[in-house]
Parts: sequence; structure tokens; C-alpha cells
Amino acid sequence: MINGVPLPPITGNGVAKVVHSTHPNFNKGDLVWGITGWEEYSLIKSPETFFKIQHTDVPLSYYIGILGLPGATAYFCFYEVCSPKKGETVFVSAASGAVGQIVGQFAKLSGCYVVGSAGSKEKVDLLKNKFGFDDAFNYKEEPDLDVALKRYFRDGIDNYFENVGGKMLDAVLLNMKIRGRIAACGMISQYNLEQPEGVHNLFCLTTKRIRMEGFNVFDYYHNYSKFLEVVLPKIKEGKITYIEDITEGLESAPAALIGIFSGRNVGKQLVVVAHE
Amino acid sequence: MINGVPLPPITGNGVAKVVHSTHPNFNKGDLVWGITGWEEYSLIKSPETFFKIQHTDVPLSYYIGILGLPGATAYFCFYEVCSPKKGETVFVSAASGAVGQIVGQFAKLSGCYVVGSAGSKEKVDLLKNKFGFDDAFNYKEEPDLDVALKRYFRDGIDNYFENVGGKMLDAVLLNMKIRGRIAACGMISQYNLEQPEGVHNLFCLTTKRIRMEGFNVFDYYHNYSKFLEVVLPKIKEGKITYIEDITEGLESAPAALIGIFSGRNVGKQLVVVAHE
Repeated sequence: MINGVPLPPITGNGVAKVVHSTHPNFNKGDLVWGITGWEEYSLIKSPETFFKIQHTDVPLSYYIGILGLPGATAYFCFYEVCSPKKGETVFVSAASGAVGQIVGQFAKLSGCYVVGSAGSKEKVDLLKNKFGFDDAFNYKEEPDLDVALKRYFRDGIDNYFENVGGKMLDAVLLNMKIRGRIAACGMISQYNLEQPEGVHNLFCLTTKRIRMEGFNVFDYYHNYSKFLEVVLPKIKEGKITYIEDITEGLESAPAALIGIFSGRNVGKQLVVVAHE
Repeated sequence: MINGVPLPPITGNGVAKVVHSTHPNFNKGDLVWGITGWEEYSLIKSPETFFKIQHTDVPLSYYIGILGLPGATAYFCFYEVCSPKKGETVFVSAASGAVGQIVGQFAKLSGCYVVGSAGSKEKVDLLKNKFGFDDAFNYKEEPDLDVALKRYFRDGIDNYFENVGGKMLDAVLLNMKIRGRIAACGMISQYNLEQPEGVHNLFCLTTKRIRMEGFNVFDYYHNYSKFLEVVLPKIKEGKITYIEDITEGLESAPAALIGIFSGRNVGKQLVVVAHE
């Protein structure tokens, strides 16, 4: 309660089982994913925003990750906004995160050279050894991000998958190729700042005819089944892998959320409220 | 000379008459436009980059302006990068300049609502009374550019034709509509700063799925004749007008160039080196 007004529940993306339904499309026992409350039982007033889970031969948690919003974000943002071509170079920031790890794997499947940045040695190792990035670096150990990028991209970056904003974006702008594309998927380094950092190198957009474009996965919801058709077989065939950071218990959710902003999680952060 | 090395001549866009030619496409007496030196006679080593002037029933100076690079820039950058639709809103910064004044007139011809910003009362009057902008304001008299933009765009901006960068871009980002387009044609406010100003509101690109794209008219050179076919009749019919700021004498060129960066010129800045 704030000033006597009850707060709405905090919401997040969840996998759930229907325990009661008056909606014709959903029956008791159905498995679904969509926006639920941070609670054990949620009253869903807009069930049409939920997807019924049809394929249960993959971990159900994947529907919060690689088969849910992060996966669809990676897929549509990378292919629709970046439009990568075989042989092009790709840079992914926050590359071990829920979206970045998938983008890197799509980049490899598309015949691109891909490098990712992350915030710890453990994450950098994952990028190189688990997700198949061509290379990766720990941005916290780089005194000059421009120099770091030049080390991995001698001829520049064709596609930048932007997850962080701020100083990294500034360094990337200096290293983009002519007619490069920046998919502005997120800017997590800026969300909790009172005043976002200034980005100084935007003149590069003009001098290098760069296209920078924002993205919201909800614009692509209607194409979800197409995405599933492409990605589900690749998971089953082992051509795409996915790492999750699983925390048990609803009471651990606040700390898990805060951990995301300091990069404590490794892979998609999940909170298990109940096992099936 | 700097350290004993002779400097190349300063170059600029010029209209000239051929006095001698060994190139089969150009003959003595031909009128041409292209990049010349700041000098009375230029030796052109790449004549294939020059356009022969075919239509002399308009002022020849127009080939440095509305029928040259600024005109082609306005045309291709507005139509190809912004892709404006009838009924949409358009904001143009540096709107009385060589490019901006034409963009505003294209916007009106396309059925858009268009507002421009400029740096003096005289320029604002021109925008409203000569170029047919729906409205205009003097950015130097606005303590808060965000507030100013909200006055003219209650429902937001669909298309921003970016000529200035910096603080104006920051205010525009806050006022863009969802899926708005920003054509990054130039950022003149930033060119002479040792450190470009920081732009703080780039998160709006993501939250509003804005596309921001750089532009260089040289990419569209091959379509110049198409542009001429569209624009030349409109000039002759008086449907598009153009203002030039003409200075006499090569010796006045340096001051004229410097004047552009403080906004002293009104309309396209020209220097007359010789009359025909």
C-alpha cells in the first residue's frame, strides 16, 4: 500500500498451469506462458495474451527464455532489424544474457563472425566455449572500449545488437562500418541512472549512413508460431543451446531482479515458484 | 604550406563553365556543376563526377542549391529515409538552411503538417511566410526545447529531419511518436565542438521503436535525373521557392563559411567568383 492505495502485483513473464478457466480456449491443466503476477496463483484477466504450450519435450522454463520473449526478441530483432548477411560481422553486448546468447548463436547459424562482450571471465568463457561466439571480452577489464573493439573488428562492425547503451554504444559507433545496422533492443546500463549517460558519437550515424532502430517484441507477437517452427527443431537437434540461472522460491525474486542490473546472473534469470 | 607541404585547394560545390577539355563528354563552353576549388580556374581531374547543366531557364546558382546537392539531399533523405505519409507530422531543424527550406516544402506538397526551427526572427518569418511551413520557432528564444516541441506537436512527431544534433535531438527524441523516423542528415551544432554534446534520451529509440538513419547524397547520385524531373517543373510552376544568401568575391568566402556555423546566412550561402 502507498497512501492507502493497494499496489498492483509486480508482474513478470511466467510459465503456469491453468487451475480454473472460463475462457473457451483454455482448460484446467493447460500449460501456458505469458505475463503473470509475482505470486503463487494469478488471476489472468486477459487470457488472450497467453500462449498455450504445445511442445513439452523441452524444459518448460524455456518458454520464459529461448522459446518465449527473449528468444522471439533475439530472432525478430536480429533478423528483421539488423538483416545480417552471410560473412558479415556482428557484435553483441550483454552477450551472455537472456537475449544475447541466442543472438550470437543465430549469427553463427547465419554464417557471420560474432564477438560478444560480458562482465566476467565466467561469462566470457561461456560465450566462447558454450555458445560458439568467435571471440568475447570482459568489458570491465577494458580501459578503452574503442581499442577493444578494434582488436576484434579490424574492418569494422556490420551489425551491432545493442543491449546496454552508454559508453559501449559510443565506442561501437566509432567502429561501425558504412551502412551498418544497430538494433536497439535495450540499454540496460542506463535504466537505473537518474540522468542517462550522454552518447557523443552520433555524428557517425550521418558520416557512415548507419541505421539504428528500436525494437519491441510485442510488434511481432503475431509471428510467434513462425519463430517456434524455426527454433524448436534447432533446440532439439542441439544446434542452439541455452543457459538459465535458476533461483528457487518466490522470496528470492527481489534479489534476483536486482542482480540483473549488476550482472550477477549468468544466463536467463528464472525464479521457480512451484515445480510441476 | 604546412611544414613545407603544399595544401590542396579548399573545395566546394560550384557552377562553372568549361574553358578547355580533353574529356569526350565535355566541350568548351559547357556549363557544369560539381566539386571545384576555391579559385577562379580549376583543373578537374575527375570530370565524370560533374553534371552538365542542361536547363538554363532557372538561375544557374540553383545548381549549387535546390537543383544540386542540397536539393537532392532534401529530396532523397526526406522521401527515402523518412518515408513520410500524407497527414503525418514533420519537424525540420535548421529549417531555413539550404536543405531545410526545401524539406519543408516537400513536406507540404506531400500533405504533411510541418514545423521548422531556426535561429532568428527573420528566418522564422521566412519559414512561415515564404516557404509555407505550418509553423516555426526561434530555438534561441526557447528556454526548454521539449516544451517548445510539445506546443507544436501535441500528439508527437512522425518524421524528424535532423540537421543540428545535440540538445535539439535530445528534445525531439522525447517527442517522437511510436515508429517515428529520424533522418540524420547533419548535426551542424556539433561539428566545431572539441567534444560533441552528449545525447541522453536514446532509450526512446527502443521504447518507441524509432528508426534513425544517416544519409549521404552521394549514394543517390545515380538517381539525380529522376530528382531533376520531379523538382525542375515545380520550380518553374512556382510550387517550390528557394532563398539564397549571395556574397560577391572569392575573398569573401572564408567569412561566408564561418558565418554558416553561427547561422549568419539566411538561406543557401553562395559566393560569386565570376558572373557568366
